Amino acid sequence: MKKLATTKYPVNELIKSRWSPRAFSDHKIPKDVILTLFEAAIWAPSSRNEQPWRFIYGVKDEGANYKKIYDTLVHWNQQWAKSAPLLVMTIAKRNSEYHNEENTTALYDLGQAVANLSIQATDMDLFCHQMGGFEKEKARDTFNIPSNYVAVTVVAIGYYGDPDKLPDDMKELELKARSRYDLDRIIFNEDFKP
Amino acid sequence: MKKLATTKYPVNELIKSRWSPRAFSDHKIPKDVILTLFEAAIWAPSSRNEQPWRFIYGVKDEGANYKKIYDTLVHWNQQWAKSAPLLVMTIAKRNSEYHNEENTTALYDLGQAVANLSIQATDMDLFCHQMGGFEKEKARDTFNIPSNYVAVTVVAIGYYGDPDKLPDDMKELELKARSRYDLDRIIFNEDFKP
Repeated sequence: MKKLATTKYPVNELIKSRWSPRAFSDHKIPKDVILTLFEAAIWAPSSRNEQPWRFIYGVKDEGANYKKIYDTLVHWNQQWAKSAPLLVMTIAKRNSEYHNEENTTALYDLGQAVANLSIQATDMDLFCHQMGGFEKEKARDTFNIPSNYVAVTVVAIGYYGDPDKLPDDMKELELKARSRYDLDRIIFNEDFKP
Repeated sequence: MKKLATTKYPVNELIKSRWSPRAFSDHKIPKDVILTLFEAAIWAPSSRNEQPWRFIYGVKDEGANYKKIYDTLVHWNQQWAKSAPLLVMTIAKRNSEYHNEENTTALYDLGQAVANLSIQATDMDLFCHQMGGFEKEKARDTFNIPSNYVAVTVVAIGYYGDPDKLPDDMKELELKARSRYDLDRIIFNEDFKP
């Protein structure tokens, strides 16, 4: 299903095509395709090339990680994310490699890596749906994540499925057009207006 | 100048080609190309579609913003960034639209928007170099940025220039190959290893 962004300016097709569905097919993702996603992620830029991004991933019906990641999701997300063949927990390293100070751009850099992953996914007919709705302390306990790292999102990834299999409230969201603020509210060539 | 990422897996050409130079040409960027960059940025995903990204931009020799942004940069960055025809200050909105709580993914979402902008730039033969090295409190004063917003990076953007015009130490960095940690250090299909 296509939900192209309605842009005023001619943006790249991958950016235009990317959206966050809830209906995934049960088609498995080949291992080399999964690794290509992560390879795309790590070639994002980061402050002083610190690369403060880490990814714990679980493939459905393979090993223990899928269930462990799934179990951290809030109920609303569990209802639909169970159809995705791949779950990825994204993690930021909060302290700098070079000294023990806070890396203030760790989350920003992680976001760039995940954006790269999403663009690469779109290029391989995959879809990503990022979630903030998961239990962060449970994630920390489950995977023994030390305090200088923080889990930020869980991403459900897969090929597109059948929206008719979604519950009614989710199906409505699935079919709703994508929307964004007007550019004028976001960019400032003179004074900044909050 | 090309500095392709040396990837093991076949990532998208735009991701492979993107890098952060210091040598920009004095070729101006057409206004509609600038707006296309921002249009690409805003179609990134964000938590609850809050779109916590804002951009103050300045075009060289047009209006007051270029100089104002430039003046916030640390000296090292001022030396080379002066050749870029476009400077963009990226800003995150730290509180949620829906309630006054902290938006814990604001920086992460901003990073995704800037990654989109960078991919779009690459697609239009432009290069971006993001900088954390600028005076954040000076930025806050200069643009009256309220406390629920925070300036995160300044991005220098332009067409590629002549690396021979850079000082020797910067030229060395310009020609150095891009590098990343091995994937094995970054992704975990079993236990997380910090």
